[in-house]
Amino acid sequence: MDYALLLETFGRDHARHAWPRQRLLHECLRTAIRDGTLAAGTRLLATRALAQELGIARNTVLYAYEQLACEGFVIPDRRGTVVAGIAPAPHRRAADVPQAGLARRAQNLRIVNGSAGDGLPFTPGMPDLRAFPLAQWRRLLDRAWRGLSAAQLNYGDPAGEPALRTAIADYLRASRGVVCEPGQVFITDGTQSSLDLCAHACADAGDVAWIEHPGYGGALAAFRGAGLVVAGIGIDGEGMAPTVHDWATCRPKLIYTTPSHQYPVGAVMSAARRLALIDGARAAGALIVEDDYDSEFRHEGPPLAAMQGLVQDAPVLYCGTFSKTMFPALRIGFLVVPAGLALPLAAMRAQSSAAGRTAEQLALAEFLRSGEFALHLRRMRRLYRQRRDALVDAVARHLGDRVVVEGASAGMHLVLRLPDDGLPDVEIARRARAQGIAVNTLSTHALPGGPPCSGLLLGYAQVPGERMDDLVRRLADVVP
Amino acid sequence: MDYALLLETFGRDHARHAWPRQRLLHECLRTAIRDGTLAAGTRLLATRALAQELGIARNTVLYAYEQLACEGFVIPDRRGTVVAGIAPAPHRRAADVPQAGLARRAQNLRIVNGSAGDGLPFTPGMPDLRAFPLAQWRRLLDRAWRGLSAAQLNYGDPAGEPALRTAIADYLRASRGVVCEPGQVFITDGTQSSLDLCAHACADAGDVAWIEHPGYGGALAAFRGAGLVVAGIGIDGEGMAPTVHDWATCRPKLIYTTPSHQYPVGAVMSAARRLALIDGARAAGALIVEDDYDSEFRHEGPPLAAMQGLVQDAPVLYCGTFSKTMFPALRIGFLVVPAGLALPLAAMRAQSSAAGRTAEQLALAEFLRSGEFALHLRRMRRLYRQRRDALVDAVARHLGDRVVVEGASAGMHLVLRLPDDGLPDVEIARRARAQGIAVNTLSTHALPGGPPCSGLLLGYAQVPGERMDDLVRRLADVVP
Repeated sequence: MDYALLLETFGRDHARHAWPRQRLLHECLRTAIRDGTLAAGTRLLATRALAQELGIARNTVLYAYEQLACEGFVIPDRRGTVVAGIAPAPHRRAADVPQAGLARRAQNLRIVNGSAGDGLPFTPGMPDLRAFPLAQWRRLLDRAWRGLSAAQLNYGDPAGEPALRTAIADYLRASRGVVCEPGQVFITDGTQSSLDLCAHACADAGDVAWIEHPGYGGALAAFRGAGLVVAGIGIDGEGMAPTVHDWATCRPKLIYTTPSHQYPVGAVMSAARRLALIDGARAAGALIVEDDYDSEFRHEGPPLAAMQGLVQDAPVLYCGTFSKTMFPALRIGFLVVPAGLALPLAAMRAQSSAAGRTAEQLALAEFLRSGEFALHLRRMRRLYRQRRDALVDAVARHLGDRVVVEGASAGMHLVLRLPDDGLPDVEIARRARAQGIAVNTLSTHALPGGPPCSGLLLGYAQVPGERMDDLVRRLADVVP
Repeated sequence: MDYALLLETFGRDHARHAWPRQRLLHECLRTAIRDGTLAAGTRLLATRALAQELGIARNTVLYAYEQLACEGFVIPDRRGTVVAGIAPAPHRRAADVPQAGLARRAQNLRIVNGSAGDGLPFTPGMPDLRAFPLAQWRRLLDRAWRGLSAAQLNYGDPAGEPALRTAIADYLRASRGVVCEPGQVFITDGTQSSLDLCAHACADAGDVAWIEHPGYGGALAAFRGAGLVVAGIGIDGEGMAPTVHDWATCRPKLIYTTPSHQYPVGAVMSAARRLALIDGARAAGALIVEDDYDSEFRHEGPPLAAMQGLVQDAPVLYCGTFSKTMFPALRIGFLVVPAGLALPLAAMRAQSSAAGRTAEQLALAEFLRSGEFALHLRRMRRLYRQRRDALVDAVARHLGDRVVVEGASAGMHLVLRLPDDGLPDVEIARRARAQGIAVNTLSTHALPGGPPCSGLLLGYAQVPGERMDDLVRRLADVVP
């Protein structure tokens, strides 16, 4: 078929004309598959050949093909890419067909969270929920509810309950070197809410936000949702690595980074890099959004203090969450802002969002204050380290010659890096899933237009050590 | 002083040049007051005179003066407007001075929710929290927590717990004539979240959203936050009243309305108007956001069914909340979407927000299913009606010749309409507050640029009937 004609006809529509090429190509192919122009079983042109035919970069074609594969419209195999037989599940069909009334920006978003209840082994980002002291939590919660006055059923403090803000400030000072007063701590519904707040409060539509490449889809979604222009910045072994060219040509307003355990690759940002990033942000008048997820679980080497407290008055918005250290359904996270922004943000929160959940916040404050939280963390740190060791050993045994392990020194997941020109990681993940193993993929964390990357993310926090060997053996069966 | 020169100098900055006049004037005066150019005690030029001097509409000046009065920079008195002595509270000062790092859009927002714990009599939007069966709720909550498995501590269904979606669909079908399946019901953190979701999912930046004038500041904040262009549409005794000219010249994508009890004025939208609005929305390809707040409390006349179920496949997004029927700190609301949007929105939620709070949702489902919610509502309906009657009587006794009562046929608040050319309502509210009475004002619900309106909002739900006479007598002392 004539791809160029297809692309041209489809792209003639004014709105689409402004789309980035990979999005245009992706939509164009998807439409052709949906309406049967590209029938099931058709082998798509090889990426290199199509790139040549259309006069575009091969990466653009790769990206479009990968997106189609993620959505189930095509199936990559060893010889290339074949159009899938579409008898899509009702869910998939309805989600893909743009509906009357659905905004353009609500279409084609990236997945942020795994589906609910997805408890398969190696699902990343999932703590060991069985190890959480649930009975104790219930008791604290019940006590908080019993102590509540009728007035405390009203809207709460938009910045959060003072007792919880104080408990978090105390905890962060002691354990992360974060320098803050309780007034700088804002309680949110979790990191996604914190990122939304950063994006709306500290940047205007059209401002540039940097995120790591590959990076966290949730940050991408939050920043795009706020109308920011997102630029992907490369990483190396020391974490986010902006070049002089990046600073000069693409001046950021916000810089999102995950220094404790780069998501998804797992690099730990060096102290020198932290200082350089702070200096650069200051010179550019930018704020750093330090997502310190996974900082609680450092398995090797001395702990590195948060960037927020590294220098005086660091231009840092510091994000944390209890989703990983306690449990995701809790929906409580926090954002620590520079002292100068504390009062304006409190005013802003009062104006744009409604607060409450007083009993839950008071129970959590007590959980922190009583030392139970620290005790639970210590237990989990030990448990996760054991599981990491078991996983690393099993990978060495069964996959040692085929993958490179990265990001194992901290956190709750590690990465098995794959060759970029091999079987796409999403296809390996699909095959693993058929074996009852849920791995996430590096390529789906690549930003559109960035260089390709391929690898598997294995969350090990919820996998018992004694099951590692068997699971990795099964995974090895589907890794070429 | 030379206002015109001040305005011109200030407005020369490119960004400010594009501001609407009232905003420019407001900022200009504020800056002059802050830096002392306009010293404390200075009497500002009369609105009419300043309008003439600057060659702008008097409303523009009125708006700027009212904004300044709200913020405490000037004090209106019987002879005009005087610059306040600024020794502002730390809170106010910090919130007003733009801070390094604070986005432009995070400045000068409108207040959505009253400050936390503001329990003064007549605070609008506050249910009687003492009447809530808290012990029963605690029992349901504790039972839900006890029944939770470890897996239920994980992220929940992004659309909400199926049991709660079903219970809400059942309730809405039976009590509000809403036609929906559980799959169309989305659980949110409250109306503000529901409006955010509507604005992001069903409109793109630059699309037009209609809201009522005067109208709900929360809708304005949500729509502006999503980059929509907001247009104010006038209301009359039958509710929102778009003209032929509105439909022709300002085609909306979203139409926000509060048909059960127009916020803030309290008009109930007639059946004929409801049908006309649905027809108009269909013709324009728009979706109606029906905020059915206060629908549970109809004190006179037959209940009117929700617009959502009035005709088949109405183009309606239906919002509700448990903040008023239960208590605000619960932070649970819902959005019912057209069947065709249910699956795309479910996919979108999965991609852009994290869900949880499973135990709370299951407890609420049980509260609804067991009939306890309906019983509580019946009790509150009776109680609020008695309080409304007591308030209406007291107003007739003490204020009958000075105000017109509006919006008393439903809901939890009514409006005392004041003459537009009298003492500004915000000044009356300020004086009432000094008497320990918290009334909200109509003028602060006016959209920038719309015609002026003046009045007091009195929330009566939380005020015991036996206190009404005394409170209204005290209020009457400050109403000229």
